[in-house]
Amino acid sequence: MADDSSKRLTGFIGLGRMGRGMALNLCRKGFRLVVHDIDPRPVQDLVAAGARAARDVADVASEADVVITMLPHSAAVAEVIAGPAGVLASARPGTLVLDMSTVAPEVTDGVAAAAARREMGFVDAPVGRLASHADRGESLFMVGASERDFTAVRPLLEAMGTTIHHCGPPGSGTRTKLVNNYLAIVSCHLNAEALTLAQKFGLSLDKTLEVIHGTTATNGQLKIAWPTKVLRGDTEPGFTIDLAHKDLTLIVEAANAVRMPVPAAAAAREAYSLARARGYGGKDFSAMADAWCELAGAVPPRLES
Amino acid sequence: MADDSSKRLTGFIGLGRMGRGMALNLCRKGFRLVVHDIDPRPVQDLVAAGARAARDVADVASEADVVITMLPHSAAVAEVIAGPAGVLASARPGTLVLDMSTVAPEVTDGVAAAAARREMGFVDAPVGRLASHADRGESLFMVGASERDFTAVRPLLEAMGTTIHHCGPPGSGTRTKLVNNYLAIVSCHLNAEALTLAQKFGLSLDKTLEVIHGTTATNGQLKIAWPTKVLRGDTEPGFTIDLAHKDLTLIVEAANAVRMPVPAAAAAREAYSLARARGYGGKDFSAMADAWCELAGAVPPRLES
Amino acid sequence: MADDSSKRLTGFIGLGRMGRGMALNLCRKGFRLVVHDIDPRPVQDLVAAGARAARDVADVASEADVVITMLPHSAAVAEVIAGPAGVLASARPGTLVLDMSTVAPEVTDGVAAAAARREMGFVDAPVGRLASHADRGESLFMVGASERDFTAVRPLLEAMGTTIHHCGPPGSGTRTKLVNNYLAIVSCHLNAEALTLAQKFGLSLDKTLEVIHGTTATNGQLKIAWPTKVLRGDTEPGFTIDLAHKDLTLIVEAANAVRMPVPAAAAAREAYSLARARGYGGKDFSAMADAWCELAGAVPPRLES
Amino acid sequence: MADDSSKRLTGFIGLGRMGRGMALNLCRKGFRLVVHDIDPRPVQDLVAAGARAARDVADVASEADVVITMLPHSAAVAEVIAGPAGVLASARPGTLVLDMSTVAPEVTDGVAAAAARREMGFVDAPVGRLASHADRGESLFMVGASERDFTAVRPLLEAMGTTIHHCGPPGSGTRTKLVNNYLAIVSCHLNAEALTLAQKFGLSLDKTLEVIHGTTATNGQLKIAWPTKVLRGDTEPGFTIDLAHKDLTLIVEAANAVRMPVPAAAAAREAYSLARARGYGGKDFSAMADAWCELAGAVPPRLES
Repeated sequence: MADDSSKRLTGFIGLGRMGRGMALNLCRKGFRLVVHDIDPRPVQDLVAAGARAARDVADVASEADVVITMLPHSAAVAEVIAGPAGVLASARPGTLVLDMSTVAPEVTDGVAAAAARREMGFVDAPVGRLASHADRGESLFMVGASERDFTAVRPLLEAMGTTIHHCGPPGSGTRTKLVNNYLAIVSCHLNAEALTLAQKFGLSLDKTLEVIHGTTATNGQLKIAWPTKVLRGDTEPGFTIDLAHKDLTLIVEAANAVRMPVPAAAAAREAYSLARARGYGGKDFSAMADAWCELAGAVPPRLES
Repeated sequence: MADDSSKRLTGFIGLGRMGRGMALNLCRKGFRLVVHDIDPRPVQDLVAAGARAARDVADVASEADVVITMLPHSAAVAEVIAGPAGVLASARPGTLVLDMSTVAPEVTDGVAAAAARREMGFVDAPVGRLASHADRGESLFMVGASERDFTAVRPLLEAMGTTIHHCGPPGSGTRTKLVNNYLAIVSCHLNAEALTLAQKFGLSLDKTLEVIHGTTATNGQLKIAWPTKVLRGDTEPGFTIDLAHKDLTLIVEAANAVRMPVPAAAAAREAYSLARARGYGGKDFSAMADAWCELAGAVPPRLES
Repeated sequence: MADDSSKRLTGFIGLGRMGRGMALNLCRKGFRLVVHDIDPRPVQDLVAAGARAARDVADVASEADVVITMLPHSAAVAEVIAGPAGVLASARPGTLVLDMSTVAPEVTDGVAAAAARREMGFVDAPVGRLASHADRGESLFMVGASERDFTAVRPLLEAMGTTIHHCGPPGSGTRTKLVNNYLAIVSCHLNAEALTLAQKFGLSLDKTLEVIHGTTATNGQLKIAWPTKVLRGDTEPGFTIDLAHKDLTLIVEAANAVRMPVPAAAAAREAYSLARARGYGGKDFSAMADAWCELAGAVPPRLES
Repeated sequence: MADDSSKRLTGFIGLGRMGRGMALNLCRKGFRLVVHDIDPRPVQDLVAAGARAARDVADVASEADVVITMLPHSAAVAEVIAGPAGVLASARPGTLVLDMSTVAPEVTDGVAAAAARREMGFVDAPVGRLASHADRGESLFMVGASERDFTAVRPLLEAMGTTIHHCGPPGSGTRTKLVNNYLAIVSCHLNAEALTLAQKFGLSLDKTLEVIHGTTATNGQLKIAWPTKVLRGDTEPGFTIDLAHKDLTLIVEAANAVRMPVPAAAAAREAYSLARARGYGGKDFSAMADAWCELAGAVPPRLES
């Protein structure tokens, strides 16, 4: 796997809860690493595993062929990559920067553009799954890269994870991660509201989950129903937006009647109300996707394949 | 299936988009039916299938052993079952009322209590899945009933559907349906927001869905992660509420930056903010369920089995 | 005041926290009253003040020329006025029904139509201000009535309050009250969010209120700015929707940074985002009124005078 | 006014829609100015009024005794004041930096701390009112400053505005502006929702506004009611949170019934629901302030005087 890559030197900056495990997997699989972190402890762990400890960011950047960054927030990425003492200031033309942090898209775009101005490549590849997956080399990566740069970083990614999605040009990895986490994180709060409602109702949790898992409630819709419906442009109703609005009204009222706040449901109801005001009431409830794209000035979502 | 039930007479009131198909399945499977609807057309269809057309609600109620109601809203259910010219006013003690409408829980509780006062049984069994499933006798039912009444209506339900959940005593069917539809309907709007964001970002829809379907984003959490975590009382973090809040902040900001409204995400973010204010920031993000139950004065959700 | 009205008999049904004080003011000012409530205690107070206690609703309705109802919710109003044993069932043609409860507009419309079918007049006149104002005969009334019926009920209203707005035909009183209370009640929560933010920021409350009261923040906008701007069709920017969105973004971020939930601000921000998506970003922020009317399919709000 | 200040040199960086008018007022009133903007056109206007055009930020900073910054966003303020080529890098110890931009509180705190480390003073004084007020020297300023620095900048502020609030130490000006604009901007959207509802209801706008302006709906509450109620710790109900929740439920339902989205009202309703779940239902609706502070972990708001 790490064949000719093993002769190349890989820099790794940011050895936190995720980065440490990722870097250790690179070491174990034969990659030569030069590493840096403001905390000396994980640096020691990497040195024990065969990596060289760099003095600072510039020391990493001036030597490595590929520099990986795994940092906690947008400001750190901007500073470490594009700041006055950052990677781009010290690296040679031709160096490839691989940012695996989760940051704002404009930060990704900004550092990508700055890298291009200095004739360096840039790949964004934020990480999915949990820290425990990273420790085991089982992460998922959403990659934004040119074909050439994707090919270049692929061995590194394969050493750190098991699922690699090439989502499009630079910037696509970051954006795909945000869409993915949108669903994961907001769904989590939905679950919280729904189960709290079940508790307020005095239902059996075991039975309620058994029911929910047998329906499309836990969002089998997006996987099962939508690809043959709205995502093909078919919004003939199985269940209309008007009926969804009616049921959601019952739900929000029932929750309020037991003194339980359901802010996400309430926000969703107003969104259905907006779709109805715009003439979508008689369409299938999956047509919320079309309604929302129209309101936001986006093209409706349609599958290509 | 309709063995000794075939000698008994079943009333069916409400032959709309769902009710007509359900009643036709009962006819086909050998049940004797007396039916009523304010619209004469579906009544004709049922007569053609062997049912008797009643003059009015009282005519159904005075003859049938079990009276099924499938009506469009809470007010119709209250009127047709418990109103001055309703089922309870004309039926014999011992008659069983089976309401399959989706209504407010207090309406279900009210008609159940009114039935009990007249020594009649009551079952709530709202219907899951689509109208096309009802036509094919493939519905799902969420049933609130005593053991005895559940046994009594079971042959009828088996003639109309393929999945039958006995959720608890009267009122449990209605409440379980609301919790189930909460997830189904609000998730649908989440999908709409998330895909709109993908469109505004200019991502490949096919690729984005491929990524999403490979993660827990489409709510595999509730099925896969939660039963071993928060629903057992384990909130050790895989991914903390603080990190979820941070990511959701990036998401909401990125959406606003491309002039796209994300009301459900924004509401969810404030819910995470509330959980952080209450001291849950360092727990696993599935602990949103505990945070929300605490805020709403409900017991935390824990599996029994 | 109660000149020839004093010969007429006024019915009053509903002597709760508001109704009792209102009815007592009618007694004091010389109106002849026949009253009813399910609670005997306030009935005693009215009898002591000179009113006659009726046996039931029918007893009030069969004798009175005008029947006032002051009831706690929509269901009670529907039942007491239009139910089988209600006012309309017992009253003579020509009787005038004056409902002063706060109810859903469709309930007002329903009982108004039922009264018209029986050749009775109907006026909706929900009550503004507090219970203590009602006790002192200082209430405010928002009246929906024909000119003729408004003239007929005016002496009664003048005996119970100090400010009487004739808002339009039947149904207008109820609807005006809802719009008024929308602002009063949601503003109250806004104040709560804003002052909580001030507390989290550690600001001096006295100083902060001094600043706020000197600006248009506490909604002098609607009174002072809007009548010369958007309500005349002038949306030339003093402060654009884009800038409002930018400031609101700072506000929501700052609140989240101190672990404080601001759900109303977050919902408003998404509304601004929607207005921006629809092309309103460069207009004055009062043009939110035009944006929202367009989204909801309403005509833009313009003053006539 | 500009007595001995006229001998001192004032720097002004940022001559946009607001800054240009503010700087011109300083020139007119006798202050000596050295100015800078990336756009040469307003610089010309200032030179015509007697100011000196600086080459860059460093040129301003190295000469002026007080440096005013009026910039469009947080990133610009951080860069222009505390960046490598910023004000602090070139100014002499003892220089006073007066930032009048509207930015995030942590940016204000960051540049204030950076100034302190270099023995320079820092004042934040964001600007209230419109650009037209700035042109006429009639702005309002919310000032965060030590007593000494406030005294120093006062003549400058008096030359640019008519209302000057010293809100507390550095950082207080920024925070007070955010609280003030919270109310102004979210209220604006409330007005939009409320008037859209009036339009959907077909009410007379003139009459509706006449009613609203006669009640506390347009937030007279915060000015008139609250200082004698919740802000003194008195939450005895005039109008309870339970009743507010009931009315808001009617309002949200009525709006949804006419296919009109009311996201801010819906969010507020869930906040009332939360307050009820926490035991505040029977208190005056102004006690939403106490409920929200408790939820957010802030001390309840009480006036000192």
